[in-house]
Amino acid sequence: MKILITGLAGFVSRHFLNLLSEKKEDSFVIGIDRNEISTYTGSLKQIKIENIKSDLKDKEFLKKIIADFYPEYILHLASSSSVFKSWQHPADVFINNNLSFLTILDAVKESGRNIRILSTGTSDVYGISANTNPHIKETAALHPANPYAVSKASQELMAKVYVDSFGIDIIQTRSFTHFGPFQNENFVLAKFAKQLTLIKKGLQPPVLTTGNIDITRDLSDVRDVVNAYELLLKKGKSGEIYNVCSGKGIHLRDVLLLMQKKLNVDVEIKPNETLFRKGEIQSIIGDNEKIFIDTGWQPTITLEKSIEDLLDYWDEQTNKTNNK
Amino acid sequence: MKILITGLAGFVSRHFLNLLSEKKEDSFVIGIDRNEISTYTGSLKQIKIENIKSDLKDKEFLKKIIADFYPEYILHLASSSSVFKSWQHPADVFINNNLSFLTILDAVKESGRNIRILSTGTSDVYGISANTNPHIKETAALHPANPYAVSKASQELMAKVYVDSFGIDIIQTRSFTHFGPFQNENFVLAKFAKQLTLIKKGLQPPVLTTGNIDITRDLSDVRDVVNAYELLLKKGKSGEIYNVCSGKGIHLRDVLLLMQKKLNVDVEIKPNETLFRKGEIQSIIGDNEKIFIDTGWQPTITLEKSIEDLLDYWDEQTNKTNNK
Repeated sequence: MKILITGLAGFVSRHFLNLLSEKKEDSFVIGIDRNEISTYTGSLKQIKIENIKSDLKDKEFLKKIIADFYPEYILHLASSSSVFKSWQHPADVFINNNLSFLTILDAVKESGRNIRILSTGTSDVYGISANTNPHIKETAALHPANPYAVSKASQELMAKVYVDSFGIDIIQTRSFTHFGPFQNENFVLAKFAKQLTLIKKGLQPPVLTTGNIDITRDLSDVRDVVNAYELLLKKGKSGEIYNVCSGKGIHLRDVLLLMQKKLNVDVEIKPNETLFRKGEIQSIIGDNEKIFIDTGWQPTITLEKSIEDLLDYWDEQTNKTNNK
Repeated sequence: MKILITGLAGFVSRHFLNLLSEKKEDSFVIGIDRNEISTYTGSLKQIKIENIKSDLKDKEFLKKIIADFYPEYILHLASSSSVFKSWQHPADVFINNNLSFLTILDAVKESGRNIRILSTGTSDVYGISANTNPHIKETAALHPANPYAVSKASQELMAKVYVDSFGIDIIQTRSFTHFGPFQNENFVLAKFAKQLTLIKKGLQPPVLTTGNIDITRDLSDVRDVVNAYELLLKKGKSGEIYNVCSGKGIHLRDVLLLMQKKLNVDVEIKPNETLFRKGEIQSIIGDNEKIFIDTGWQPTITLEKSIEDLLDYWDEQTNKTNNK
C-alpha cells in the first residue's frame, strides 16, 4: 500500500500505522501534519514513513508530493474535530476543514492521476435526525447541529460534486464516536479514564465533574475503526458514504459505571450544566449494514476490552505524570 | 428602514434601492461592495446611502459599522454567484461565500445587537431533487450539483446553527432564476437579450450560440424578487427558509422564441455542447405557498412584460456600445 496520510500525528493515524505494521505487506507512507511530527515509534518492519510538517492548504506542495510519491490512496484524517472548539471559533473550524479538503481534491484533480481518497467524516452530520431514527442509515436527512458538524456536512456535499462531475474517486465515512489509547483528553472517554485512574491512585479527590452523561452514543474501538478505513480504501464503492459504527447504543453514564467497576473506585459524579453542549443530540445509534455488505467489516473488539485497554493506557500515562 | 446591504454594486441591490426609493418611508442604507462603488443614480429622495468599498471578510470593520450605524436589517446579497466560475475555481467560490457569511454572522453575534439578517440563497441547492419534485417545496432534500450550490447549501446549514444555538435572527431564501435590466451578460437571459438586439440592428450575424436550452426554469422578474426580500425582512419568520419563485416552469427555448417574436428577428440557434454545464438540472419549478402565507408576497409582473423591459434595456445598452 502506497498511501498519503493527512493528520499523521493524530490519534487515529497512530492506530492506522499500527494496523499497517501488523500486516505482512510492505507499506509506503507519506504523512503530513500541520501541528507536529508524528512521534509514532511502533513496530515499523513493513512500513517506510516520510513525515512532513506542512499546512494542507498549500496546494502546490501537495501537487509536488503527489507527482513525486504518486500514492494509490489518500487517507484524509486531518481535521479540526473538537465540537467545543467549533463553538468558540466557528469560522476558523469551518474554513480550515473545508479549505484543507478542497485543496486535496484540487491537487488530485489537477494531478490527473487516479488516486482513491478516503474522507473521514462524522455521525454528527445527522444531528437531530438521529433522535427520531434509531439505527440511523446513510440515507437519513442531515441536520447538523454544531459548527463542526456543518463543516463536515459541507465537505460531504462538495465531495459528491467532485465525484459526479470531475470523476474523482472518493469514499466518505460517517464515523461514530470512537476511542482508545492516545486520544486527547479533551475527548470525553479519555477524560473520564484519566480522572478515574488519578482518583484510584489517590491523586485526585473522588469527584468527577462531567458534561451531560444522560445521552446515548454508539461507541467503537479505534482499532476496529482503522480496520474499517483500510477495508474501505480497498473495497469501498467509489462515491459512497459509509457509517462506521457498532450498531449498539450505550448511555455515557453506564460507560462511566463500567470504568468505575473495572477500577473498583467509587466517585461522586457531578454533572455541570455549564459544560453541557449546545445542540447536543440525545441519542445516536448507527446502522452498519452498508459497510458490512460492501467490505465485510464488522467490529471485533468488545466494549469491555476497549475500556480495559483505555484504562491501562491512562494508568501508564498518569504514572508518567506522577513521576515527573 | 435602516439597512446594511452587502454587494451594493450588484444587479439585485440596484433594484432593491429602486424599491426603497418608490416607497414613501425614509431609508438609511450603508452598502458594502468588494468590487466597486455602486453607480446607482436613481431617484433617492427618501434614501440616504453611504457607499463603502470593502472586503466583507474584515470582521472588525463590520463590527465598527454595526456599532456606529446600528442597522435594523442586513440584506446579504454579496456572493460569488456564477456557476461557471465555480466550476473553474471551486475552492475560491466556496471559501469566499462562506467566509463572508460567517464574518457577518460573527460580527452580529459579537455585537450583541438584535439585527435581522436576510441571507439570499439559491434554488440550485435542490439540485437533482428538483428533477423528481415538480413544484418543489422547502422541505425537499438538498442535492446541490455544482460548487456554487454547495457553497450556498453550506451557508444554509451554518445559518441554522446560528439561529438555533446563538439566537441570531436569520431568514433565508432559495431564490429561483431571476432576471432584469442591469444583470451581467454572463447570465443567460441577459446574454440572449443582448445578442438578439445586436442581431436586430445588423451588428451581429443572425446566429445565436447557446448552452443547453432544453431545460425548464422557474423565472421571476428581479423587481418582484426585491419586493419579496423587503417583505421577508419585515414579515418573514425567524429561522425559516423561503422559496422565492413564480411557481411556473418555462423551457429556455420558449423564452428565446418569445424574445425573437418581440423583436421580430429570425436567428439560427446553435446549441454548443462545450457550453453545457456539468450537473445541469433538467427541470426546476418551485412552490411559493410558504412565502405567500407568511408575507402575502406573490409575483405581479408577467413574463412578457419582464422580457419586454429586458429587451428595451439591452436596446439602449447596445446603442451606447455602438456609439462609442
